[in-house]
Amino acid sequence: MSTLYHVLGAKQFDRAVLDKLFISAREMEHVAKHAGTDRFTSKIMSTLFFEASTRTRFSFESAMHRLGGRVIGTENASQFSSTIKGETLEDTIRIISGYSDLIVLRHTEIGSAKRAAAVSSVPVINAGDGSGEHPTQALLDLYTIQKEFGRIDGLHIAMIGDLTYGRTVHSLSYLLANYQNVHIYFIAPDNVVIPDSVKQYLDDKGIKYQETTDLVEVAKVADVFYQTRIQKERFPSEEEYNKAAGKYIIDRHLLSFMKKEAMILHPLPRAGEIAIEVDQDPRAAYFRQAQNGLYIRMAIIEKCLSGKA
Amino acid sequence: MSTLYHVLGAKQFDRAVLDKLFISAREMEHVAKHAGTDRFTSKIMSTLFFEASTRTRFSFESAMHRLGGRVIGTENASQFSSTIKGETLEDTIRIISGYSDLIVLRHTEIGSAKRAAAVSSVPVINAGDGSGEHPTQALLDLYTIQKEFGRIDGLHIAMIGDLTYGRTVHSLSYLLANYQNVHIYFIAPDNVVIPDSVKQYLDDKGIKYQETTDLVEVAKVADVFYQTRIQKERFPSEEEYNKAAGKYIIDRHLLSFMKKEAMILHPLPRAGEIAIEVDQDPRAAYFRQAQNGLYIRMAIIEKCLSGKA
Amino acid sequence: MSTLYHVLGAKQFDRAVLDKLFISAREMEHVAKHAGTDRFTSKIMSTLFFEASTRTRFSFESAMHRLGGRVIGTENASQFSSTIKGETLEDTIRIISGYSDLIVLRHTEIGSAKRAAAVSSVPVINAGDGSGEHPTQALLDLYTIQKEFGRIDGLHIAMIGDLTYGRTVHSLSYLLANYQNVHIYFIAPDNVVIPDSVKQYLDDKGIKYQETTDLVEVAKVADVFYQTRIQKERFPSEEEYNKAAGKYIIDRHLLSFMKKEAMILHPLPRAGEIAIEVDQDPRAAYFRQAQNGLYIRMAIIEKCLSGKA
Repeated sequence: MSTLYHVLGAKQFDRAVLDKLFISAREMEHVAKHAGTDRFTSKIMSTLFFEASTRTRFSFESAMHRLGGRVIGTENASQFSSTIKGETLEDTIRIISGYSDLIVLRHTEIGSAKRAAAVSSVPVINAGDGSGEHPTQALLDLYTIQKEFGRIDGLHIAMIGDLTYGRTVHSLSYLLANYQNVHIYFIAPDNVVIPDSVKQYLDDKGIKYQETTDLVEVAKVADVFYQTRIQKERFPSEEEYNKAAGKYIIDRHLLSFMKKEAMILHPLPRAGEIAIEVDQDPRAAYFRQAQNGLYIRMAIIEKCLSGKA
Repeated sequence: MSTLYHVLGAKQFDRAVLDKLFISAREMEHVAKHAGTDRFTSKIMSTLFFEASTRTRFSFESAMHRLGGRVIGTENASQFSSTIKGETLEDTIRIISGYSDLIVLRHTEIGSAKRAAAVSSVPVINAGDGSGEHPTQALLDLYTIQKEFGRIDGLHIAMIGDLTYGRTVHSLSYLLANYQNVHIYFIAPDNVVIPDSVKQYLDDKGIKYQETTDLVEVAKVADVFYQTRIQKERFPSEEEYNKAAGKYIIDRHLLSFMKKEAMILHPLPRAGEIAIEVDQDPRAAYFRQAQNGLYIRMAIIEKCLSGKA
Repeated sequence: MSTLYHVLGAKQFDRAVLDKLFISAREMEHVAKHAGTDRFTSKIMSTLFFEASTRTRFSFESAMHRLGGRVIGTENASQFSSTIKGETLEDTIRIISGYSDLIVLRHTEIGSAKRAAAVSSVPVINAGDGSGEHPTQALLDLYTIQKEFGRIDGLHIAMIGDLTYGRTVHSLSYLLANYQNVHIYFIAPDNVVIPDSVKQYLDDKGIKYQETTDLVEVAKVADVFYQTRIQKERFPSEEEYNKAAGKYIIDRHLLSFMKKEAMILHPLPRAGEIAIEVDQDPRAAYFRQAQNGLYIRMAIIEKCLSGKA
């Protein structure tokens, strides 16, 4: 049986673990909506965020509290911690792992979660390492698809936006490689396309995908639209940014091409890439998706603290 | 029977609700000084502060802990959250309300609490919205008057300082409109006088008030002095600021004119507008007032989480 | 019997109190490693850090949670609190002490903890006041020596690095004055030597010490090496800093001169003054030392909240 200890990247999850995790997340939804549990009342989770993310931090901290646990945290470790005095991440983790039972790490550098796990005396959960991965986001994305469609096998999934630096896209692609007959569409401006390393992984796993720039054509066939934010600073000029960003907006016009039972996801926060007018459409699943983040993180924390899947 | 769900502004409180709230605050004082309660042990309060206020945040968080509850918070949401990535307040609230049972919001813009309440799935408490309102501060101000004088009807109340941007003054004025025969004195430098909208509200409610610049004359007749801080940046020059600020200081000299049973309040923090020498005078009630903030916020949180008044 | 209420400086501790505290810390290690305790479930500790220190804050907050207690905190009080509006430390403490049962204060100014204690209605623990003292760090340092050597009497202890501004060195020196036949070596660059006030105190207590610049000679005879960080900004030029810093590095070469049963301590964070290669040596005790911080702080908090030693 597969086990969870550290949660570092999406590639560590196989289908058996995912199935169990999703069953647990459903149970956690019940726990969260009722009295909670005091199961982990003596456990402490550290949230060590070297990069700000109120939403992700709140989601983890709420999950820990719903499980009865305790939280110590920092909102902006890079500015406040001894990092500015020249301390290595390894030294920080060695010490913090002595003060808590679980570490949730958000860091600016690729590979930082792995480095942390190498020296930590407690489980480490990667809550985003630079443009690397963000596995718990991908797990909640996938869980939302599973929960609302009842299946993942056979779905056509469009990933839109910044596919180079968008770490959630990378993690979600790796997770999808566990399923049968999925078909991925990568839709991105020229300068932020999906990396070769992701494509290579999908090739190795036999997953079908295609790169395209025609969102309207994809809108007619896709089941899931995974929209992401494009950052202005990736583009040489504001003009080029506007041109690129304008092409990939999900709005009422695009909705008219989509299948009736389609689903629109977004890791959030959104800027203008999903129009407000879409919120009222039943296909807009991104707020339900954010809510699922609570349940999936409860399930993940539970497994990390139990030391088993 | 009036009920509390969101706490957005002082105008929503009528006398029946205030009477009950003050009774509850007295009970909460007993709870806080003894073993606390585990009534809300499975509830989570989010403190979402887009503007820093350690005191107000600590007061709310201490109140929630004394009630047995849990807290997730951010000290500086504007800098850290996805706001800097262009997210609307509405999106932030939609998601945070899924992670908690109650939101305490401090924001820089007037009307933000109302906007938050419109999309939140849980109660929202306005902990200050720009130069708009700060209803829980006004409730603790009024509670302090009630507790120490035994009544509010018939009192003469002086409000001093920045009456334009001082949101606690606005909220307190609205609350006082629920009482009989109160008389308000507004004492402010020319450029930060009480807004017409507040005066109009008092007129509509039949509350007597007058604007004056003679603090010594008012000192002789007022029962309550509500002193507030004047901000240097509201004035065209340091010279004009010093001139204005110097006129409205409460010090030993002014104390000599005040009635023996008068009461000096201040929402704090103070700069120089109440001299340190005043602290030892029994009429200086501002530290007791701050302490009452804990009890009134326990009462408010209790009512919000119970969904009833 | 000596008692603990405020913890302001190392000089307040006599040997009887230290002995009891160390016994309590051993018990706390057991509590922390097992289910924790719910002894202080209704108590609130405020961590008021006017200067950032994620490690120290986490250590205190973890300790409070392991004791079953609750925490409200601020990471950067100087930037966020009403301090920027001109509030005095005394006013801040008066109010925060009404919201909590214990205050842990880190501040930039010498004497701030004492000023806080003078107005606080609850115990104050000094978690570092400028270049003044950091008594709980010194207590954990001493506890580590006691725990690993089984004694403190008769030991030869080298203190290395910035001895002028290194407040932990001051506090540890004061604590060592309680023991018999200890011998201290102070090894520092010319511009950051041990202050006369510390030497005077040791003279008064009859403690032997010597100042030297020859780390290799000391390496041959010392039992404990207390290494500290030298700050670049204390030196007139980068060149002089490099020259000074280079002389006092603990590395494999220096290890070769040290006694087999010696112990290397560091309050952490370290920059380059202890080489990474030293970490694997059994004499490297600094990570165990950091871990002991949790147990000693649990013991200190327990005594402060119990109001007795």
